[in-house]
Amino acid sequence: MKMYQQLLTLPQKRRGFHIITTEVIHALPQISEFKTGILQVFIQHTSASLTINENADPTVRKDFEMYFNKVAPENDPEYQHDDEGPDDMPAHLKAAMLGSSVTIPIRNGRLALGTWQGIYLCEHRNYGGNRSLVITAWGEA
Amino acid sequence: MKMYQQLLTLPQKRRGFHIITTEVIHALPQISEFKTGILQVFIQHTSASLTINENADPTVRKDFEMYFNKVAPENDPEYQHDDEGPDDMPAHLKAAMLGSSVTIPIRNGRLALGTWQGIYLCEHRNYGGNRSLVITAWGEA
Amino acid sequence: MKMYQQLLTLPQKRRGFHIITTEVIHALPQISEFKTGILQVFIQHTSASLTINENADPTVRKDFEMYFNKVAPENDPEYQHDDEGPDDMPAHLKAAMLGSSVTIPIRNGRLALGTWQGIYLCEHRNYGGNRSLVITAWGEA
Repeated sequence: MKMYQQLLTLPQKRRGFHIITTEVIHALPQISEFKTGILQVFIQHTSASLTINENADPTVRKDFEMYFNKVAPENDPEYQHDDEGPDDMPAHLKAAMLGSSVTIPIRNGRLALGTWQGIYLCEHRNYGGNRSLVITAWGEA
Repeated sequence: MKMYQQLLTLPQKRRGFHIITTEVIHALPQISEFKTGILQVFIQHTSASLTINENADPTVRKDFEMYFNKVAPENDPEYQHDDEGPDDMPAHLKAAMLGSSVTIPIRNGRLALGTWQGIYLCEHRNYGGNRSLVITAWGEA
Repeated sequence: MKMYQQLLTLPQKRRGFHIITTEVIHALPQISEFKTGILQVFIQHTSASLTINENADPTVRKDFEMYFNKVAPENDPEYQHDDEGPDDMPAHLKAAMLGSSVTIPIRNGRLALGTWQGIYLCEHRNYGGNRSLVITAWGEA
């Protein structure tokens, strides 16, 4: 078995849900070497997150943004952590619900995603800045 | 270290939460070869998900179905993605909250689940059809 | 590639969110051997969970407790699973939303966490007792 690891810095994206499957694959071309393997993508932040969901109709991503804004609203008077702006504490909560990593099997040199699956970068801040990812793949050639 | 990978197609299940621990173990009998290892189960869909929860009292699974239907309700007039029926957009949201994979340690040839833990297939559609899983295990004999 | 695995039992903590990064690293000192690797931490329970979030301001953890108590309230009359006390079914729901494991890259002998990231043990029961974790690391020296 072998393992490869690569850092990937994504330039600032606007608040919302963004498909990054292509950027991830390009950052670690050694994925193609694995007959059988696993890819892990990890985000080094607590106010943005990663998930897997539909890669086709863009209204799904718009509905995600609408929905999670309802589930974790801004300006809840019960928040104690409010020094960094109204979008900060909701961002932490959304990041915890969605998760800081995705783990995807590799099969015959390709990510074994379903037809409709893509990797989402979930940007929960209004101005989140660049986002740092660590991409790791391991398996057998 | 070695790695094994297997596809598993589960026949259509009714909407709700279903324990699939036995099906997963039977699909990859090489789990028993690993003294120390990891099992990953990945679902290739965006309207069904995987999680780990109580394997005993079936009312837990009924409460999960009741609860997630409240948290991600059908027919929210703010959904833009509504072409595939009222159960579709809530299914995507539930799948994102629960996740597309579970990762479980292997110890002495067995999954190191706690006494009360089982793997749940979470079917969020009314008629979701067959569901395709990719099961991967790696570790040391 | 090599793999190490260790059990870690944490003494009972009070209901809420607790940073356990140091305990995890101390339990598996072989993390430092890996130039490139992955750490997985798994909790063998269905009423406590693991996530990654802010390691600095303690009000973030207080807001997490306040928030998840609202999202998964006690005493919903629709819960069928209520034999083990009002904190039990909400604990299962919170555990499913937050997850039973975290997976973190290792880089140059250290966890590749972001500056503000820590590992949270999320104790969802009032008296949850000791909690058993399985810690596994694999990678290349």
